[in-house]
Amino acid sequence: MEGGARSGGRGIARPTRFLREESEFEFWRLAAFSDGVFAIAITLLVLALHIPEGVSDLPRVLEDQLPDLFAFALSFAVLARIWLFHHRLFAALKGIDTGLIALNFLYLAFVTLVPFTSEVIGDYGHEKVAVVVYAGNLAALGLAGAAMTIYAFRRDLVRPKIAADLRVDTGLGTWLLPGVFLLSIPIALIDASAAQWSWPVLFIAGAVAVRRVPDRGSG
Amino acid sequence: MEGGARSGGRGIARPTRFLREESEFEFWRLAAFSDGVFAIAITLLVLALHIPEGVSDLPRVLEDQLPDLFAFALSFAVLARIWLFHHRLFAALKGIDTGLIALNFLYLAFVTLVPFTSEVIGDYGHEKVAVVVYAGNLAALGLAGAAMTIYAFRRDLVRPKIAADLRVDTGLGTWLLPGVFLLSIPIALIDASAAQWSWPVLFIAGAVAVRRVPDRGSG
Amino acid sequence: MEGGARSGGRGIARPTRFLREESEFEFWRLAAFSDGVFAIAITLLVLALHIPEGVSDLPRVLEDQLPDLFAFALSFAVLARIWLFHHRLFAALKGIDTGLIALNFLYLAFVTLVPFTSEVIGDYGHEKVAVVVYAGNLAALGLAGAAMTIYAFRRDLVRPKIAADLRVDTGLGTWLLPGVFLLSIPIALIDASAAQWSWPVLFIAGAVAVRRVPDRGSG
Amino acid sequence: MEGGARSGGRGIARPTRFLREESEFEFWRLAAFSDGVFAIAITLLVLALHIPEGVSDLPRVLEDQLPDLFAFALSFAVLARIWLFHHRLFAALKGIDTGLIALNFLYLAFVTLVPFTSEVIGDYGHEKVAVVVYAGNLAALGLAGAAMTIYAFRRDLVRPKIAADLRVDTGLGTWLLPGVFLLSIPIALIDASAAQWSWPVLFIAGAVAVRRVPDRGSG
Repeated sequence: MEGGARSGGRGIARPTRFLREESEFEFWRLAAFSDGVFAIAITLLVLALHIPEGVSDLPRVLEDQLPDLFAFALSFAVLARIWLFHHRLFAALKGIDTGLIALNFLYLAFVTLVPFTSEVIGDYGHEKVAVVVYAGNLAALGLAGAAMTIYAFRRDLVRPKIAADLRVDTGLGTWLLPGVFLLSIPIALIDASAAQWSWPVLFIAGAVAVRRVPDRGSG
Repeated sequence: MEGGARSGGRGIARPTRFLREESEFEFWRLAAFSDGVFAIAITLLVLALHIPEGVSDLPRVLEDQLPDLFAFALSFAVLARIWLFHHRLFAALKGIDTGLIALNFLYLAFVTLVPFTSEVIGDYGHEKVAVVVYAGNLAALGLAGAAMTIYAFRRDLVRPKIAADLRVDTGLGTWLLPGVFLLSIPIALIDASAAQWSWPVLFIAGAVAVRRVPDRGSG
Repeated sequence: MEGGARSGGRGIARPTRFLREESEFEFWRLAAFSDGVFAIAITLLVLALHIPEGVSDLPRVLEDQLPDLFAFALSFAVLARIWLFHHRLFAALKGIDTGLIALNFLYLAFVTLVPFTSEVIGDYGHEKVAVVVYAGNLAALGLAGAAMTIYAFRRDLVRPKIAADLRVDTGLGTWLLPGVFLLSIPIALIDASAAQWSWPVLFIAGAVAVRRVPDRGSG
Repeated sequence: MEGGARSGGRGIARPTRFLREESEFEFWRLAAFSDGVFAIAITLLVLALHIPEGVSDLPRVLEDQLPDLFAFALSFAVLARIWLFHHRLFAALKGIDTGLIALNFLYLAFVTLVPFTSEVIGDYGHEKVAVVVYAGNLAALGLAGAAMTIYAFRRDLVRPKIAADLRVDTGLGTWLLPGVFLLSIPIALIDASAAQWSWPVLFIAGAVAVRRVPDRGSG
């Protein structure tokens, strides 16, 4: 732990820092707590799949769950990727401060909402508003992740060599996930189905573009 | 681990202590278990948001969820702040004993109730009794937190220097959260909506007051 | 880690042991996994409390939840005590083996059932069968805990000095919790309400009796 | 952490490795996250047991839950065994890389589905499609586990001595669990009940066969 003392009479304190080496336990708790939220959110996705008791035509009812299964698979994959991002960002951190904890909570709030918006798109994937709600949730999640990354670099909370090795930076790649989902919102306002097809297309196109442009944001 | 032997024939044993340095694992388990409860409670908040299948006017039904979304955001923010308090308190601890574990369970019981009372206020925010139940839950949670802090100081379970750096003390600030929600209960008995507006107002006024009064409770 | 090699042609291998010192990570995972199950079970208790939307007489509906709140408080307290037992047992362990992992899973299965049986007794506390189901769940949980303790002592998985300090032993105290709930089952068959009153009475009487009889089981 | 640098102009980077010794924290997070998902999935199994409020003949309604209780016990036992496999595999690992993290997520996706398919078989155990869905889920889970094991050996992520002691290998035993459930699918297409009886029979027969054939897969 470092700093944290009220700086003179200025009223606003410098955020308390917990460095990985000095305060391993405190550093670790934030990651473990975040993992708890991730694990629960990713497991709650399954609650969108449900068969009532006493159904007469089970095969047909199971078939009706296919869009929900698709939404489950999509949201599971997105949350897995998001977790991977979080894992890499924290691997690159040398410490945390109150600001980062606050941004991490904002980030987790959008993680927590995914089981809800995922159920909405599973049940109403053909409706524009459902696609907008889902894409909005994931875009906000991506933006909160980008904010966390930028904050960590600005506040000197990053171990530069490890960040470079893990390609944790504030370059174009940071904006890929939020960009894809933000772009899909106007598409959804025209056609719900087109917006859902746009996600893999935009994602692959974006990934190719990111690879071609040299990263300069992490410098 | 320290003590724990039955003290002579007195019948009541001195509570067993697990010191952070000697019993890192046992110390850590309590924080990890608490984080598990926090993570689940904060993620269960999303279950208050629910769209039934087969709705015809989805945009309107989503709009009806706005008070639930507001309750979600409020409870998420409160639990995040509560977690931050718990994180700082445990960072300042040099050990735990059976009494602190018991108080921590009391504290977690009120954390666990938040998804329920939060759903009540999301659905019935205009009713006095709903606001009283919610404010009562959070006031009890705040009081249990204050009790835990005072207990830790009295039983010499605190590392004074780190507590001072993190501003973990038994001063006025400890009573801010329970005070705000306790004060809002009589307001709720007059007007449900006024009580909800009183939370941010009281909270900001209280935070300013706490800052002006020098902390003497931690000495 | 120790042993684990197939012992000659005997077919049945000696259970693989993970010692706390050598395999800290593997030892830790079992406790952390158990804590996860505990944390989720204790938090799911709140799902027994539920207010449907669109209720007209909210104060009365909230009042109807009081038996559920009582069941919540009781089950929360029991699970907290059970966790404390688990915390102490693991603090006293010097290692785990496959047999202990299996018994721990049996134990966790009964932990996992508590939110279900607790909901049953919350909704049907006046019915004999509900009390029998609940008491049976907790008796089985207590017996699984006792089996785990005895197994750990027999297999030399315990650090004797720490166990003595923490009063982890196989004496009378081990049988207090399962004994109380087992004894209440015949009482429940006569009167559901009497069985519920017998729990605190038997528990306090048993705790006094355990204190008076010197522990000889741990020797 | 090791490698991770983009290898020249090849575009596809060698997956970043987190070694247990160098990056204990990052290694640990994957196991802890997986344990979170396991703990939640195994605890959500209990949600399949449910008694509505206001039932008049409680003993009969409880009796109707017996198939659900059987499904609970079966799925709990399977997930416990699966966790044990995961615990041993990770004990044998010397590090993780992005490929292993991805396979682990695939594996966890099938873990997450178990509460759903378990509820289906609890409610519809007499229907062929329910048995096929359940067996398919567990077969896929077993195959993902086998894929993870093979990947770890191929990528040199295993500590050979510990793997040998724990009998973590890519031999016949790896295929026992997926084999049993795969074989039961054609049986289920003939008779739902026979398929469920085939599980213990095939499992015991397979375990005996595996013991007789010397393991050569781990070499």
